[in-house]
Amino acid sequence: MEQTEVGNKQIILKNYTDQIPKETDLELRHGNKIKLKVPKGSGAFLVKNLYLSCDPYMRGRMRDFHDSYLPPFTPGSVIEGFGVSRVVDSDNPNFKPGDLIAGVTGWEEYSLIYRTQQLRKIQHQDDIPLSFHVGLLGMPGFTAYAGFYEVCSPQKGETVLVSAASGAVGQLVGQLAKLHGCYVVGSAGSSQKVDLLKNKLGFDEAFNYKEEPNLDAALKRYFPKGIDIFFDNVGGDMLDAALLNMRIHGRIAICGMVSQTSLSNPQGIHNMYALITKRITMKGFLQSDYLHLFPRFVEDVSCYYKQGKIVYIEDMNQALESAPAAFVGLFSGKNVGKQVICVAPE
Amino acid sequence: MEQTEVGNKQIILKNYTDQIPKETDLELRHGNKIKLKVPKGSGAFLVKNLYLSCDPYMRGRMRDFHDSYLPPFTPGSVIEGFGVSRVVDSDNPNFKPGDLIAGVTGWEEYSLIYRTQQLRKIQHQDDIPLSFHVGLLGMPGFTAYAGFYEVCSPQKGETVLVSAASGAVGQLVGQLAKLHGCYVVGSAGSSQKVDLLKNKLGFDEAFNYKEEPNLDAALKRYFPKGIDIFFDNVGGDMLDAALLNMRIHGRIAICGMVSQTSLSNPQGIHNMYALITKRITMKGFLQSDYLHLFPRFVEDVSCYYKQGKIVYIEDMNQALESAPAAFVGLFSGKNVGKQVICVAPE
Repeated sequence: MEQTEVGNKQIILKNYTDQIPKETDLELRHGNKIKLKVPKGSGAFLVKNLYLSCDPYMRGRMRDFHDSYLPPFTPGSVIEGFGVSRVVDSDNPNFKPGDLIAGVTGWEEYSLIYRTQQLRKIQHQDDIPLSFHVGLLGMPGFTAYAGFYEVCSPQKGETVLVSAASGAVGQLVGQLAKLHGCYVVGSAGSSQKVDLLKNKLGFDEAFNYKEEPNLDAALKRYFPKGIDIFFDNVGGDMLDAALLNMRIHGRIAICGMVSQTSLSNPQGIHNMYALITKRITMKGFLQSDYLHLFPRFVEDVSCYYKQGKIVYIEDMNQALESAPAAFVGLFSGKNVGKQVICVAPE
Repeated sequence: MEQTEVGNKQIILKNYTDQIPKETDLELRHGNKIKLKVPKGSGAFLVKNLYLSCDPYMRGRMRDFHDSYLPPFTPGSVIEGFGVSRVVDSDNPNFKPGDLIAGVTGWEEYSLIYRTQQLRKIQHQDDIPLSFHVGLLGMPGFTAYAGFYEVCSPQKGETVLVSAASGAVGQLVGQLAKLHGCYVVGSAGSSQKVDLLKNKLGFDEAFNYKEEPNLDAALKRYFPKGIDIFFDNVGGDMLDAALLNMRIHGRIAICGMVSQTSLSNPQGIHNMYALITKRITMKGFLQSDYLHLFPRFVEDVSCYYKQGKIVYIEDMNQALESAPAAFVGLFSGKNVGKQVICVAPE
């Protein structure tokens, strides 16, 4: 019997860039028609991608730099990222048709998957949206969890600044910090986001950094006694201003630097001397170093969510065609909350 | 009976500066003649200063900035710093004439001391020079000890870069790292210092940063597999180059930034993104946070010294008149080893 062939739209890297990604650095391609069958003996399985995650770290894979923790994408080929997918056919006994999985997949409608070490099976639960497995319960959520508890050494009553605070990571950091008994202030780039931070996400205060002519003065206003913990997703001017406002023995978790326009010519940070006078610990981290905590994270955060103790804001785009614009929007703060692409209805 | 009066030469801060200190920022003054007697009921004691320590941190007290961990000096008044002194007269039952003390004193021939919390009594030992109590066994030595063991988390077999490696702190860091089983490379600013590092202080390698047109290339040459620990006394370009060459989970102890020409307009550090990709911990510190370890430090380092396992290089200037030049020489690397002023022969 002839097998059905289907189209497979894909997002392709057109060319390397170390500047802020533009839509034209990516391209939608109508890939070859594929059969929805996995070759026998391949050990692979075929998935239908339901949700794809737009994450700032992916920018690092768009440049011609081979010495980082992840290899670059290949120009002319489909890019990859975190996603939620359903198994369509399988030659791998551990993954059966119908299984839902979360993990690294292709930015395309269907992906043939050989490597399973970055995948996990997930259960569809009525009270948790499936797309949360690339957000609240996925890499960004885990980044917030590991970064806050393992890197920031938080104590009840401490003061916490979160930059890009309504983003995929920041919104959870702030809520975990509140649950921990901290005073939490978020920085974001629009009045809409500031409103969400204060009125939906439970931050004590929030401000629009674009409306602050002097970030140092803004931080002094919100932290008259200084900052114990800075969870930084943006780098640049905000990091420099925070250094001036840290308290003695403060901690800075360096999670991202989404403010940087050029990865090859990054902005200088000037107030490093504060590290000494205030005895600050500044630590860069990747969630992948803490994967032993992932099961506990899923349990804790699912529980908080189901109890209504935390919420999670998603910015959902429809269809793979919208993926390039959604992705590049991360770097101008166009997204409100975690940016996800719905590739196929569940 | 009329008491003897003596002259009391003093070093005065002439004016605040946040640039590299110049000799003319300090001034020798012939202070009022003083009696070598302490007022009864004052609880104070009078010391004759024998050795004074020139330390880069003192620069921070020469600027009109009141929000640091130490208050600024007062223009027109005598400056203070670490010294070794002998008690001449005392109204304090804990300090008797003839006692030797190390700690904070005035940059002058005689100081009347009221505050004793930063002082400790020392014993004259034939096999340890008295001046070592402001160097190897004083604040700089303790900075090396606390910084290396408590901030750098060293492991046997790791690679260590030390900047300003022949200085008061660096020379001990390198030797402790060697005793710990590390591979140690020092950076210094002259061929004489490089020679001392390699042939007297036991560093595995050393280089003259002034002769390296490309510090990144120099570090790649000495650390083909990267740097586990960077003990940084200089900041600026060396810190930026080291960031590019750190290994995953590397540690950077930020001890000083003697390279900076302006404290109010410091140089930017550009390669901060490496903190994330290599998961680097960068920690500024002050020895004063670790004073509970001071007794163990004195015991350990005295023992190493007496056993011939470590050496210590001093640059000794004679007479208080030479103090301004000796101090400002720190910032051009004129000193070879720990800079001390001998104010009075023992």
